[in-house]
Amino acid sequence: MRELAGRARRAGHAISRARGEARAGALEHAAEGLGREGAAVLAANALDLEAARAAGLAPALLDRLALDPARMAAMARSLREVAALADPVGEVVREYRRPNGLVVRRVRIPLGVVLIIYEARPGVTAEAGALCLRSGNAAILRGGSEAARTNRELARVLREGLRSEGLPEDAVQTIPTTDRSALDHLLVLDTLIDLVVPRGGESLVRTVVERSRIPVVKHYKGVCHVYVDRAADPDKAERIAVNAKVQRPGVCNAMETLLVHRGRTADLLPRLGEALRERGVEVRGCPETVRRLPWAVPATEADWPAEYLDLILAVRVVGSLEEAVDHIQTYGSRHTEAIVTEDPAAAREFLDRVHSSVVLVNASTRFNDGGELGLGAEVGISTSPIHCFGPMGLEGLTALKYQVLGDGQVRE
Amino acid sequence: MRELAGRARRAGHAISRARGEARAGALEHAAEGLGREGAAVLAANALDLEAARAAGLAPALLDRLALDPARMAAMARSLREVAALADPVGEVVREYRRPNGLVVRRVRIPLGVVLIIYEARPGVTAEAGALCLRSGNAAILRGGSEAARTNRELARVLREGLRSEGLPEDAVQTIPTTDRSALDHLLVLDTLIDLVVPRGGESLVRTVVERSRIPVVKHYKGVCHVYVDRAADPDKAERIAVNAKVQRPGVCNAMETLLVHRGRTADLLPRLGEALRERGVEVRGCPETVRRLPWAVPATEADWPAEYLDLILAVRVVGSLEEAVDHIQTYGSRHTEAIVTEDPAAAREFLDRVHSSVVLVNASTRFNDGGELGLGAEVGISTSPIHCFGPMGLEGLTALKYQVLGDGQVRE
Repeated sequence: MRELAGRARRAGHAISRARGEARAGALEHAAEGLGREGAAVLAANALDLEAARAAGLAPALLDRLALDPARMAAMARSLREVAALADPVGEVVREYRRPNGLVVRRVRIPLGVVLIIYEARPGVTAEAGALCLRSGNAAILRGGSEAARTNRELARVLREGLRSEGLPEDAVQTIPTTDRSALDHLLVLDTLIDLVVPRGGESLVRTVVERSRIPVVKHYKGVCHVYVDRAADPDKAERIAVNAKVQRPGVCNAMETLLVHRGRTADLLPRLGEALRERGVEVRGCPETVRRLPWAVPATEADWPAEYLDLILAVRVVGSLEEAVDHIQTYGSRHTEAIVTEDPAAAREFLDRVHSSVVLVNASTRFNDGGELGLGAEVGISTSPIHCFGPMGLEGLTALKYQVLGDGQVRE
Repeated sequence: MRELAGRARRAGHAISRARGEARAGALEHAAEGLGREGAAVLAANALDLEAARAAGLAPALLDRLALDPARMAAMARSLREVAALADPVGEVVREYRRPNGLVVRRVRIPLGVVLIIYEARPGVTAEAGALCLRSGNAAILRGGSEAARTNRELARVLREGLRSEGLPEDAVQTIPTTDRSALDHLLVLDTLIDLVVPRGGESLVRTVVERSRIPVVKHYKGVCHVYVDRAADPDKAERIAVNAKVQRPGVCNAMETLLVHRGRTADLLPRLGEALRERGVEVRGCPETVRRLPWAVPATEADWPAEYLDLILAVRVVGSLEEAVDHIQTYGSRHTEAIVTEDPAAAREFLDRVHSSVVLVNASTRFNDGGELGLGAEVGISTSPIHCFGPMGLEGLTALKYQVLGDGQVRE
């Protein structure tokens, strides 16, 4: 593993100073390669699927693992989209002059070597690998062992793309073994690897955080809230609550708890409850909610911090915006929270006081997404404020160094 | 420890939404308090010093620990300077509109709770505490046990400053015990503490990195290089080399290795060698250096990655800028590197290719400093690119959240 990481470090040095056009070109070549070598990738995927079925993998996981021509085309498209993003490397973010004449610039540079750890989703291999390369980083990709053959083929396509531009192939490496201890060995190599991004369930992230000496960008879970304020517009409230819960309940930016101002329990709460119930949502409510929605299940303390990832919703009546914010601070995961209100003062207070990665006014929590926020694509969504907070796109894979231009200045 | 961190978290919520004037006011009150309560602080410091002397602490460490009226005045001045810095909290760094009408803003917010771990330097208590408060964070200060009484008094003054502005005193806490296991208990509280900044020697930083589940901003060591290029101006080269090595050899931004282009071994190397030798610097040179400076000690492999923090300098002759960059990538610590050259192409190449936190052209490495680069003050200097690279001032103690303003938008 040390040798593999050492190769990544050297490739990182080389790719960090490659021209942006070459890095983009490598991704375009890889996108073509996916078309040309599609059969080989699908054949490897078929073997992975066969082994996974034999091992009794759950149908939902088999579905994540499976590739088909449509998914391959989507993957190629995503490589081309990342290639087309503006190059972050070399951007001068600020420039100023000091009284002694020194000119100081803050310039965007790649991080170096990024280790991505994920489960059996081959799409991540292409997308995360592409984002690392586009931002001038070397990537070590550690996907689920169930997808080992598929990932090796995908990495081969990315490496061919690199070679065709004269860039070092080792800027993309997959971990060649299914050995579980490989990860433990990698996670202590903090002089060779600059960042770890675990993409997956809470237990994966926890394990990585516990064992890693390398900085980790964490995405624990999304316990996202929608707060329907006293001054909420009823149509917007219904549209947003339904979209946030129902459009794709299994993802991290779906709403898990709805907070409703006490002043709206008579008119809005029943309307929202019915709209959700019609769409198959089970409501677990506080006592006041259950009084208004007799069909709802009484909530227990365990419901407030729960990430259901399912058609289940916790609902609580609060006496004020203050109480809503307190609830979010106590039970939330700093992922995404929205307020529905027509009162600008309430909107401002919510925006100022809730320190989650994305805070919205009159919009669905589902907008916490790299594509939706204009970042192009994302490696993941960070719920801790260090380094990158919210969707992690190209910028999250860079750092700022200082360049200082002098004319012989020394310190007195 | 969990209770203490929980108090910090709650105080962090409160101070994160306090007005900037109140946070600045608390520091001004504390500066006054240092004047008013100077005698109590000095009395506590005298007890710490007495115990440290009895325990046989080295004179250099006793000097770091000792306070006197001049140092107290410097501390009060530094509190006032931090109070006068522009408030980073609430700054809108970017604002843009998405095609669906959503307005997206990136807004600067405090990190939350910051744990500072340092050795027996009471000045850090005041300065790091002040930077945390100014940026809206709660601080947990864990200074060396030798300074426990002094730090308690200093924290009391900061807490009185907070109280006088109606802010929660628990936004500054010192660790009340000299129990070594306290730190281990704190370092796993990653839901209550957002960032750890260890300020001190390499072994302290390593221990913290190994044990912490909380993100760490690391400052390992400063193996800083000056590369004298083929096109170097002799006067600038001498001025910069002498300043970088001699002005304050015991600090992390002092030069530890001088690289000289082969084309300048006849004229410049002897001149630089003599200038350094006159100032008491011991040179440890590569074979070619020793041929030119017969009084120099032959360097061993151990000299290239060494951080001497003393009047000792490693000197190596290199054949090209490329070779200088390779040497820096192999042995450097990503802290600070400078090139001396009159050739714009060489300057540009060095600036582009060396990914250290601060890279300079024709200026002393000693400028890698929060004050010198215009940040006002610093909690430390980060040598890893994650979150903050280089001097960590107020901005390094903040994060960017997304605010999204909609009018009922949902995802299709």
